[in-house]
Amino acid sequence: MAHPTPSYAGAYPFTVTRTVKWGDCDPAGIIYTPRVLDYAMEILEAWYREVVGVPWLVLNRDMGLGAPTVRAELDFFDAPYPDQDMVIRLLVEDLGRSSITFLVSGRDGVDKEFFRAKLISCFISRPAFKSTAIPDAIRERILAYQKACDEG
Amino acid sequence: MAHPTPSYAGAYPFTVTRTVKWGDCDPAGIIYTPRVLDYAMEILEAWYREVVGVPWLVLNRDMGLGAPTVRAELDFFDAPYPDQDMVIRLLVEDLGRSSITFLVSGRDGVDKEFFRAKLISCFISRPAFKSTAIPDAIRERILAYQKACDEG
Amino acid sequence: MAHPTPSYAGAYPFTVTRTVKWGDCDPAGIIYTPRVLDYAMEILEAWYREVVGVPWLVLNRDMGLGAPTVRAELDFFDAPYPDQDMVIRLLVEDLGRSSITFLVSGRDGVDKEFFRAKLISCFISRPAFKSTAIPDAIRERILAYQKACDEG
Amino acid sequence: MAHPTPSYAGAYPFTVTRTVKWGDCDPAGIIYTPRVLDYAMEILEAWYREVVGVPWLVLNRDMGLGAPTVRAELDFFDAPYPDQDMVIRLLVEDLGRSSITFLVSGRDGVDKEFFRAKLISCFISRPAFKSTAIPDAIRERILAYQKACDEG
Repeated sequence: MAHPTPSYAGAYPFTVTRTVKWGDCDPAGIIYTPRVLDYAMEILEAWYREVVGVPWLVLNRDMGLGAPTVRAELDFFDAPYPDQDMVIRLLVEDLGRSSITFLVSGRDGVDKEFFRAKLISCFISRPAFKSTAIPDAIRERILAYQKACDEG
Repeated sequence: MAHPTPSYAGAYPFTVTRTVKWGDCDPAGIIYTPRVLDYAMEILEAWYREVVGVPWLVLNRDMGLGAPTVRAELDFFDAPYPDQDMVIRLLVEDLGRSSITFLVSGRDGVDKEFFRAKLISCFISRPAFKSTAIPDAIRERILAYQKACDEG
Repeated sequence: MAHPTPSYAGAYPFTVTRTVKWGDCDPAGIIYTPRVLDYAMEILEAWYREVVGVPWLVLNRDMGLGAPTVRAELDFFDAPYPDQDMVIRLLVEDLGRSSITFLVSGRDGVDKEFFRAKLISCFISRPAFKSTAIPDAIRERILAYQKACDEG
Repeated sequence: MAHPTPSYAGAYPFTVTRTVKWGDCDPAGIIYTPRVLDYAMEILEAWYREVVGVPWLVLNRDMGLGAPTVRAELDFFDAPYPDQDMVIRLLVEDLGRSSITFLVSGRDGVDKEFFRAKLISCFISRPAFKSTAIPDAIRERILAYQKACDEG
């Protein structure tokens, strides 16, 4: 992959809105804790595909790379219940040689924050599974994303 | 794989006992419907690994095969709630040239039946994804399993 | 609930488009079978909320009812891989006194059908968990939906 | 609940062994990140049920309490693939007035550590969802568990 297609035409920061599902919630009537990490990973996946232009399938199968999560921190402020809409937002906090630190938050449309997550990914080459530098074409995209978020 | 290691030393029919998880249940306090299909697929996976001696990873990666489910029928008789133990049992109802029909049931230890499922798998070769004959070594294992269940 | 708010302004039949997630797929690179039932249940949940106007939370908590799935049949024709868009459509095939039969299908935007599911729900009263007649206000909405689909 | 039945007769620290499922893994062939938090929550749930003697259903429905996770930190050292056995262990690091800090780790049987998680739960009263003191009977059980682990 020399040049990912720069097709993203949405707003900055990148956000995804999703409705909390019945099946994401537990007998206490609120979201089952691990589903919050699912939500955070989903926006990360969508961001790679839509903003960076490199779906994980392309990264893994075609580029011989991977970007596994090496650390996650989650703060759960308020537990949503079924049918609530959650606006999930992704920011890039830090961009290293081979690692990226993401900040993901989930809010309702008004003033309530459901959760905040910090996710650290590390680029690896496959099949050796050794850390490797983020390819330049991807790095440029991420820098452009950070810039657009700062200006947004 | 010429000869899967015939290591299974358990009872017939093959059963798995599992405790219904909090996170498998929904705000109605009972199991979320799709999780029942998860349970059925889990015993199928365990049966391939433990009884047939061919884990799905070996089937896919080493043997160039797959055994996707092409049809599933599920009857839900009674919905378990968290902490209930469920005894899940697998029978082979029919063995064709490339397809296998499984009957899976989930019960409590006494007399209640939670669900019954019929799952039909079809062997395919990869990457063509065309149906293919079940390898002889696997077929022999399945026939032996059916026989042991009939006698069990 | 005397009169669910008739707010649905979308097309008939009701459809939901979703992108197949990385985490919905397994090491064979295709969707993990039980996730298809998740997809089918998700459109059923969305249909109750958006078309019938009765979210499951309202049905369960406020109306003292439930509509558990008592039978599911699934045919898997083609397994999607990550990033594929799937258009999921819901039709009401049959409306009984207390039960509803749904037909759900998943296709790509062109001509490929991924799966077809038949789901049968049965209305029950809580906490007795006995089958009960579908409330008139809900029945009217379902009949109107069937009519709109026939004309659509 | 005055006195939870002190029925736990297992080893200290509390461990659960589970086999990594095909459906827990993604197209990269390794565990899908959020499933690790599922594993961590599962041992927490089992520990409440088996060691403390208070299943979450009892805590929520009968005692009018809850113990939601308010923070989670996860370090992913090595990603397991399907069929690997993982030994998951739970320790109580800190016991406050209303909060508990857990350390959960997942290892293979030999020397590899897959993940480490820190989970902080906070006891709340329902339906107010306000933090509340951990009931004495539960506190005693947790202190006894910590002591047994230190001696174990």
